[in-house]
Amino acid sequence: MAVLCRPAVQFPDHEITLADTVGSARRLHPDHPRLATAVRLIENTGVRTRRLLQPLDETLRHPGVAARTELYWTAVRGYLPDVVQAALDQAELTRDRIDAVVFVSCTGFTMPSPIVWMINELGFSTRLHQLPVAQLGCAAGSSAISNAARYCRAFPDHNVLIVACELCSLCYQPTETDVGSLLAAGLFGDGFAAAVMRGAGGRGLRVGPSAAETIPHTADWISYEVRETGFHFRLDSRVRDTMRAVTPGMAKLVADAGWSTGDLDFVVAHAGGPRILDDLTTYLDIDPAHHRFSRAALAEHGNTASVLIFDALARLFDDDVAGSGARGLVAGFGPGVSADFSLGVFI
Amino acid sequence: MAVLCRPAVQFPDHEITLADTVGSARRLHPDHPRLATAVRLIENTGVRTRRLLQPLDETLRHPGVAARTELYWTAVRGYLPDVVQAALDQAELTRDRIDAVVFVSCTGFTMPSPIVWMINELGFSTRLHQLPVAQLGCAAGSSAISNAARYCRAFPDHNVLIVACELCSLCYQPTETDVGSLLAAGLFGDGFAAAVMRGAGGRGLRVGPSAAETIPHTADWISYEVRETGFHFRLDSRVRDTMRAVTPGMAKLVADAGWSTGDLDFVVAHAGGPRILDDLTTYLDIDPAHHRFSRAALAEHGNTASVLIFDALARLFDDDVAGSGARGLVAGFGPGVSADFSLGVFI
Repeated sequence: MAVLCRPAVQFPDHEITLADTVGSARRLHPDHPRLATAVRLIENTGVRTRRLLQPLDETLRHPGVAARTELYWTAVRGYLPDVVQAALDQAELTRDRIDAVVFVSCTGFTMPSPIVWMINELGFSTRLHQLPVAQLGCAAGSSAISNAARYCRAFPDHNVLIVACELCSLCYQPTETDVGSLLAAGLFGDGFAAAVMRGAGGRGLRVGPSAAETIPHTADWISYEVRETGFHFRLDSRVRDTMRAVTPGMAKLVADAGWSTGDLDFVVAHAGGPRILDDLTTYLDIDPAHHRFSRAALAEHGNTASVLIFDALARLFDDDVAGSGARGLVAGFGPGVSADFSLGVFI
Repeated sequence: MAVLCRPAVQFPDHEITLADTVGSARRLHPDHPRLATAVRLIENTGVRTRRLLQPLDETLRHPGVAARTELYWTAVRGYLPDVVQAALDQAELTRDRIDAVVFVSCTGFTMPSPIVWMINELGFSTRLHQLPVAQLGCAAGSSAISNAARYCRAFPDHNVLIVACELCSLCYQPTETDVGSLLAAGLFGDGFAAAVMRGAGGRGLRVGPSAAETIPHTADWISYEVRETGFHFRLDSRVRDTMRAVTPGMAKLVADAGWSTGDLDFVVAHAGGPRILDDLTTYLDIDPAHHRFSRAALAEHGNTASVLIFDALARLFDDDVAGSGARGLVAGFGPGVSADFSLGVFI
């Protein structure tokens, strides 16, 4: 049985507050015709602080794609060792027991992926199966969980390490001034996460059936435009209304397990924003208090893309609700617009 | 049992010959101090023709990353429908029977990945599991096969569609004039492939155990430098000597199955070049005639990255050797330097 052990998370040093963000928006765009709307949207995200790779002034510069890729690589090398070690410790496994690595990151691109660096410099096996994923955006965290659980279902004597690295601040584009871009600049944060999925043994969240759902003809609602200046993130305001379309699939997964959404002990969702969480509450008819882990992650670190679900899960693992037998739902949403969700039971 | 059905492949219209390639190298770099070496290396690749997306003159221009990304997207939309339909037909499945798509491509980047477009425009299920892979380079084809086989091992009633799209010509960098870059410009080709891995039923190659191997401290031997002008491919001449390091793992996989490399009925390898194939022959002690499928794919279409293994496999499927019970090895090599290989038996 695939068991997700407690995730480890880590965040860079440079904290910026909501006041910093709003001040920066006002300073950079004093004459923007929709500045008030952008500020209101930023204030409504629920993001109170974020921890970025660089000080705010440097974050707001664009030194070019080559320089940003070098910053990305340096950050990966700097932050991964500790967060990976913490995840291994929490799984009570040594690195030679890891058979596959799922590496997710949509905010930097390298080939080979950092998995090869982990083999060379962190002592992982040269026989690792490499599963790098760059194109699933914010849904990549929950997708990594369901993917690793499928892997362990096929090979119950194997263990999979999931690693998520997001340097969203390295995708900031100073020339983009539409409201969606201003909102994104106030929403996304940086972070690193790692978690082990054990094929056998271990304590944590036994990950059960999973499912996915893509909402037809919404491909350009969350997307990258790829240009000389790198990834330009496009966010359509209609995204906030998408939960109605994906919750029937989530409710079906719960019902197929013989459970009821109202009886779930926990829900951990990748929260692009508070509206997403509110709508999940409504359409799934769940206790709004379930979202306290996701809301806390969003408030403290911002939307850290694929990292956020692990930030929220780590908080759940530390909560009293995560007792043996507690059952719930883990869900992420991202480009597509797509959702990837799994059921889990604490053991 | 996971069965890989016959792959479908398709190639763009613009054929360029070895003579065209060499002529172009001489015309572009008349005073290059190592032109003779580059031409000799190009002539030794075994590549006789390639089929590129655009005429040679246009291929040699760099219109910028945004324009190239648009060319990539247009090509994907143009070529995928037919190659995907052919793969489904050969698997005797309709698209509603596909539960997951593994999409591999290292020569263009989009988010969302083209899997979402396949859902929207080609009628695939909105409940698909999406597995896009962009960072495994030439090894992505064989990795997709082992990955899909693992998926089907976990869910024997599911079917996985593998799609590979490579527009290597869109990664040509006119400013790169080192010998490795001149060689790459004469080696890589464009192409599209699709193949269905059926969890149950179907005829084709039953894919068995797989393994992977990364050679320590060779990460920069095959790599991308990511810059304002896109992916700059780096190829180190030491790559040609790497087979000695990965063949013990391949021989072990064969031996663990109770087979002997000398008794294999077929070997299909992603061939970066003829030296790789020659060394596989030597170190695995196999019949050199096994490489006829890989050599033919390389000669006719060039190194089409993740597509090549499917080009070679399609040739194997059409050969008399692919009779019931025939057993062999499928192997791919790429950045890492990493290898991913699987055993298979025709049923």
